[in-house]
Amino acid sequence: MAEANTVQLSSVNTTSKMVSVEEALRIVLGVAQRLSPVTVPIHAALGKILAQDVAARDPLPPYPASIKVSLSLSLYIYRYICICLFLVGFRNGFLWGFYLGFKRDGYAVVASDGPGEYPVITESRAGDDGIDVTVTPGTIAYVTTGGPIPNGADAVVQVEDTALVDSASGDSKRVRILKQVTRGLDIRPVGFDIAKGDLVLKSGERLDAAEIGLLATVGIIAMKVYPTPKIAVLSTGDELVEPTNESLNRGQIRDSNRAMLLAAAAQQQCDILDLGIAHDNEEEIERILNRAFSSGIDILLTSGGVSMGDRDFVKPLLEKSGKLHFHKVCMKPGKPLTFAEILSGNKAENKILAYGLPGNPVSCLVCFHLFVAPAIRHLSGWTQPHLPRVHARLKQSIKTDPVRPEFHRATVRWEFGDGKEISGFVAESTGHQISSRLLSMKSANALLELPPTGDVIPAGTSVVAIIISDLIGFAGTSSLPSSNPVG
Amino acid sequence: MAEANTVQLSSVNTTSKMVSVEEALRIVLGVAQRLSPVTVPIHAALGKILAQDVAARDPLPPYPASIKVSLSLSLYIYRYICICLFLVGFRNGFLWGFYLGFKRDGYAVVASDGPGEYPVITESRAGDDGIDVTVTPGTIAYVTTGGPIPNGADAVVQVEDTALVDSASGDSKRVRILKQVTRGLDIRPVGFDIAKGDLVLKSGERLDAAEIGLLATVGIIAMKVYPTPKIAVLSTGDELVEPTNESLNRGQIRDSNRAMLLAAAAQQQCDILDLGIAHDNEEEIERILNRAFSSGIDILLTSGGVSMGDRDFVKPLLEKSGKLHFHKVCMKPGKPLTFAEILSGNKAENKILAYGLPGNPVSCLVCFHLFVAPAIRHLSGWTQPHLPRVHARLKQSIKTDPVRPEFHRATVRWEFGDGKEISGFVAESTGHQISSRLLSMKSANALLELPPTGDVIPAGTSVVAIIISDLIGFAGTSSLPSSNPVG
Ligand SMILES: [Mg+2]
Ligand SMILES: [Mg+2]
Repeated sequence: MAEANTVQLSSVNTTSKMVSVEEALRIVLGVAQRLSPVTVPIHAALGKILAQDVAARDPLPPYPASIKVSLSLSLYIYRYICICLFLVGFRNGFLWGFYLGFKRDGYAVVASDGPGEYPVITESRAGDDGIDVTVTPGTIAYVTTGGPIPNGADAVVQVEDTALVDSASGDSKRVRILKQVTRGLDIRPVGFDIAKGDLVLKSGERLDAAEIGLLATVGIIAMKVYPTPKIAVLSTGDELVEPTNESLNRGQIRDSNRAMLLAAAAQQQCDILDLGIAHDNEEEIERILNRAFSSGIDILLTSGGVSMGDRDFVKPLLEKSGKLHFHKVCMKPGKPLTFAEILSGNKAENKILAYGLPGNPVSCLVCFHLFVAPAIRHLSGWTQPHLPRVHARLKQSIKTDPVRPEFHRATVRWEFGDGKEISGFVAESTGHQISSRLLSMKSANALLELPPTGDVIPAGTSVVAIIISDLIGFAGTSSLPSSNPVG
Repeated sequence: MAEANTVQLSSVNTTSKMVSVEEALRIVLGVAQRLSPVTVPIHAALGKILAQDVAARDPLPPYPASIKVSLSLSLYIYRYICICLFLVGFRNGFLWGFYLGFKRDGYAVVASDGPGEYPVITESRAGDDGIDVTVTPGTIAYVTTGGPIPNGADAVVQVEDTALVDSASGDSKRVRILKQVTRGLDIRPVGFDIAKGDLVLKSGERLDAAEIGLLATVGIIAMKVYPTPKIAVLSTGDELVEPTNESLNRGQIRDSNRAMLLAAAAQQQCDILDLGIAHDNEEEIERILNRAFSSGIDILLTSGGVSMGDRDFVKPLLEKSGKLHFHKVCMKPGKPLTFAEILSGNKAENKILAYGLPGNPVSCLVCFHLFVAPAIRHLSGWTQPHLPRVHARLKQSIKTDPVRPEFHRATVRWEFGDGKEISGFVAESTGHQISSRLLSMKSANALLELPPTGDVIPAGTSVVAIIISDLIGFAGTSSLPSSNPVG
């Protein structure tokens, strides 16, 4: 029995194929298919990719509206103060300003009437004020900024270009117009921002906060989007125990890959399914995989606790259930990476992408970023599934691997050049890159793509950095004062 | 009555203060306090900031472990194939590789024994194999890569440096060791990746997938984190109707700010509370605000449908309930921005940050990014609350405002220089920047910070870009082949 195992281990499987990173990704994205669009309410659409065009059913503004910004008389004082604020604001605290007419209310007039004294026939603010009133020649109407312009009026005279005329109580209010205005002045005509029928959003666009606002503006509260995939995660290995285990027996390690992969999938907005830990037992793993395949998932991620030799049952089981595309990728870290397409399951129209990820946590997470994240984006309808790449200057020299292209974990920050230095991204290595050392992924927001020359790349050299985390968290040098940490 | 209103509108409030953008942000971050840490389970910790240090209670590996990567004999062939794959992989499809010994199993030995024939006393794979066995001089044990090294052994000889000896059935298996190895070879000693007691995560670090994996590794399944704030959003304005309204009456527009702000807050992982639309009615707004203040929120966002003059009740109401810090900021777009700190409510120890955001959707969202997002990050425990800034070259020339510093909406992408061009971010304006035009926020992932000179900044000039969206979505030029869009 022991002998049989050993002989099997020593046998050489000459049919295995090894692929390059680029080819592996090409295969994955070739197999991946966009998920079928679903209709969701607006509050569930955030971050999704739109699967329909959206046109405006009404113009915006829907009525001629008074324009907000009109500085007229006080422009010079206002400009002076703003420039001062801009120049000194960085160090000087705030200045007291003046009331410079932020609220630009005025009178809707018939421009051809010209200066003179007129009765105010209505006050149009917002909502339904003054809806039924028409400004005829010889009359004017009070309007607030942004408010609707009554029918008949064709220009707005700002309040400071008018004078209130004392009138006997009971009489209608009268105002003296002091300035000749031209037709259309300070009016935002109907459809100025969005014309009726305008395509405001196209299929394939990502719905962030501004796009959600646009949908609300045009009255679309349910829309077709590409759903994000459902991802199941399984860890395999006799050595693995739940992270809840406070103490470890000899030969045991806590399963970190599952929590990590579930987090990585959740971060990509996926629905997640935790398949637990499976022992190195073919029947047990097969039973779990079959249950997963029939549960409506789009992606299966397994990871081995260690590279297990004769006890690696994931690859043969994936081969049995579907089509194995590759199981080795020439890269560091990562190498043993199985990818198969499963056609069974209750979603007959959709394939399941099945990955056997390496057991070492770093290899596992690097493979997730390089091969799973782009597939998630493709399934979710992204037109550009690839992770963004930038150039970054090395903060320290790095020795490259002589054999495999390396994806070196690094923290990338923007550094503003002062004087001689050029502004740009700077990449700092996260330290020792052995694939078992998950600490090398800590704070890593980029993978540096290093060619397999075996040479030392000197500090200061620009290399390609694949961005694996949103950069919104990076602590770029900032000209802003740091806040006082309170509490 | 109409007269009284008009007189009030024309009166000038000389006590208003206008602040610069930097000063406004400094005031906001000075008022903002970190929320009190809470203990959450590991699956709820993703994206949060850790509020405690985390040390390893056991070493990793917890046992001496066989090292995975050892290429020995096949190194040269392997290297050759990997380099070929790297060089041709971009265009050539995949190559067939050979089985080159990815599974590096071997025999745990006592190094000083040297070459010779030895009995195999156990097979140590993973889990509890061979736990009670000790490799004494003159014996060896089979080990798989990553598996535990039995006590007594101090080196690993790879399988290809051994030969299986035919033995009579019933006898224990015997193996010939062909190579002299040195002590410690191919063994990852206890604590090599993480020593017992090592600080693996520090208070203030953000918990992404790798950090979640580290927590699981060291057996921490509940931890103290800073919670993200609860944010309530109210829209005010008689002109506003729900986005569900298919057709609009005269003077009506659909409320887009609320859906947009709720989405923006959700994107920052905040709990959200929808306060609906309030009419321009002081009692109604006061009632809603008071209810919100006593509901345990940390941030209140209101926005006016339009800049309302005499019907702007938010500012006086915030002044009445708390301390008003500023209500005008010298910027474009944005200007009318009220910020107050509310001390009432049932969270006596925490203040509520209350913002009266401009009604124009663009001003509203720009103010959210500049003044609310950093406050959210500060409350959530980020050590760096400021949005990241980079340099970007203008794709087209832009005329600056003569008066106010402008935050020009743009889409920023990385462009790889080929030959003469330098690699770097390029910023493309989103078009007409009038503050009512929400289309100018569509696809914007950056705000270009333009000084108020009134000059035209020529195309190609580098300007500061504030990143307001994760860059992971940007379609950077990529050397990778584009995927075939399927389905
Ligand atoms: Mg395993
Ligand atoms: Mg209003």
